[in-house]
Amino acid sequence: MSGTPETLGDLGEQLIQERVLRPRYGGVDGFGDDSALLGVVTTPSELVATTDSCPVPVVNLLREPDLYHAGWLLATINLSDLAAAGAEPLGLLVSYTLPKTTTVREFERLLDGVDDCCAAHGTKVAGGDIRDGAVQLTATAIGRSAPGSRLRRSGAKAGDRLLLVGSAGYLWAAALLETGRATLPAEARAEIWDRACRPVAQLKAGRLLAGYARAAMDVSDGLFATVRTLCEANRLGAEVTGEFVLDEPVADVAAQSGLRPFDLAETWGDWGLVVVVRAGDVQVVEKTLRAEGVAVQEIGTLTEDTRITKGTAAWDGIAQERFSTNSWHGGELSTVLTEVLGR
Amino acid sequence: MSGTPETLGDLGEQLIQERVLRPRYGGVDGFGDDSALLGVVTTPSELVATTDSCPVPVVNLLREPDLYHAGWLLATINLSDLAAAGAEPLGLLVSYTLPKTTTVREFERLLDGVDDCCAAHGTKVAGGDIRDGAVQLTATAIGRSAPGSRLRRSGAKAGDRLLLVGSAGYLWAAALLETGRATLPAEARAEIWDRACRPVAQLKAGRLLAGYARAAMDVSDGLFATVRTLCEANRLGAEVTGEFVLDEPVADVAAQSGLRPFDLAETWGDWGLVVVVRAGDVQVVEKTLRAEGVAVQEIGTLTEDTRITKGTAAWDGIAQERFSTNSWHGGELSTVLTEVLGR
Repeated sequence: MSGTPETLGDLGEQLIQERVLRPRYGGVDGFGDDSALLGVVTTPSELVATTDSCPVPVVNLLREPDLYHAGWLLATINLSDLAAAGAEPLGLLVSYTLPKTTTVREFERLLDGVDDCCAAHGTKVAGGDIRDGAVQLTATAIGRSAPGSRLRRSGAKAGDRLLLVGSAGYLWAAALLETGRATLPAEARAEIWDRACRPVAQLKAGRLLAGYARAAMDVSDGLFATVRTLCEANRLGAEVTGEFVLDEPVADVAAQSGLRPFDLAETWGDWGLVVVVRAGDVQVVEKTLRAEGVAVQEIGTLTEDTRITKGTAAWDGIAQERFSTNSWHGGELSTVLTEVLGR
Repeated sequence: MSGTPETLGDLGEQLIQERVLRPRYGGVDGFGDDSALLGVVTTPSELVATTDSCPVPVVNLLREPDLYHAGWLLATINLSDLAAAGAEPLGLLVSYTLPKTTTVREFERLLDGVDDCCAAHGTKVAGGDIRDGAVQLTATAIGRSAPGSRLRRSGAKAGDRLLLVGSAGYLWAAALLETGRATLPAEARAEIWDRACRPVAQLKAGRLLAGYARAAMDVSDGLFATVRTLCEANRLGAEVTGEFVLDEPVADVAAQSGLRPFDLAETWGDWGLVVVVRAGDVQVVEKTLRAEGVAVQEIGTLTEDTRITKGTAAWDGIAQERFSTNSWHGGELSTVLTEVLGR
């Protein structure tokens, strides 16, 4: 009526339910009930679950603050933890805290991002909760795996190899492009931007490796933090080569920015998996994953010696930690760029 | 060292993990992995899940802001939704946002509240996430039920009876006592306070009624809101008697405060269930529940006529709605008392 966009506060809980949520989710079995239906399992299953909140997406700092990207990232973050367990997703539960001033359009963009990401990963939003307050987006992903096949952080032995699953460096290549540290033709730039906005959880790789890999963990806080955590969980060290072959446009951005390929490979935001496999299994694992279109590269070896080295020197890579003074969650872009890439 | 209490910000994420969480949860299978293990199901199961955040507990407004109560309430809120589905809990995932200034002691009280509540309900915290920011406590409960036995909001018929399961009125009786609207001997007062602080989810009743009741919903926003929602979900109305027999000390508080018993019965905070059963089943359901120590009373009948009446007049009871200007979530105690009890 007034020409100003309708907000969640204008609607109130009941109208949000009827006008926004029911048209979108009303066909989901259990919609409107106190508990959502995740599904029916008929074979013996180990049930796993994970919960994580979504930080402000870096791509929102780089361009406009479109809630679509936060929605996509929220789903990916949680599905990535299921991937690291080698589990098949049963569904996602979402918990949104949003200000009353959020427009219905912004809210729809958030839902679109979550729903599109779930669909891309073969799963769905099963239920959720919404309340008013300062923005906080949290989700819980539930999955199943065959008993005994679940991947864990522990289980690795000295001599096992470290594989990085997934294509690394897209998010921070996009950051370098957007901040003018590198340039690419429009098409290549658009592809990098698109992949930076829509990181994929490595569910397919996780399922292929379930019951086969010795250990796995997703790269949520940077490759160094992941390798360090895997080493600690197994009381081992690691020799990481420091070599990495980036996809061609990402490699181009790295070169223009004066970065070595590994500098981009060790960032976070691409939701790869670090998977530990027996040395003798590397070839068959790489062949199996590549046949399914999943990128994978060997990056190092686990060692009895608990030091972590890159090439010939100690590796003291980037890592983010919550509740610390240098936490990057929600940091300013310039600070983040400096801390992640040294520029 | 300095004599000031240690805070979460003093520790940082890694030390929180090692000093607080590992000693408490390190024995849980899956601790430290990307995904938590909920358990193994070996029989065909409908899996259900629910997620809800915890408002500031009313008991924290009445006395000291002890996070124990928020922890207990967070677990009860979520387990109560499983109860309304007639499901058996598999586990709880928690997501805590807490300021860096939160003391370790306060954090431990929160964990104690959640863990004690889970233990009282025969379940456990399977995993979770913690981050720094303004307080927000969210959890997701996952449960199972035998295929086909899950309770829902829909499925009721005209002529079915409404039962209120659980003992009503304890929370607001405590509020009346704490604010001097009524007095009781110390022992009775302590019992009311204890039950107000530790509301119980009606999991046992839900499981006994699974596959048997026609519909169910928990009383999270007041009895009127629950009955109205059940009516809407079934396109029916209801004739509620307006009669209710409170437990003796709660009845005493109501009388001293000039309230009718039903005024306390229709409040929220006690996490009862409204269950719909066939008229001919009322006696056997009541007998079954009481034999298991679960309080239950018939409160009315569902009708073809979609009006909702209490006694002979239209019932326009209390109900809280999020995203509305009169939302009670996080309201001031005096306002809440006035809106809930009219005084």
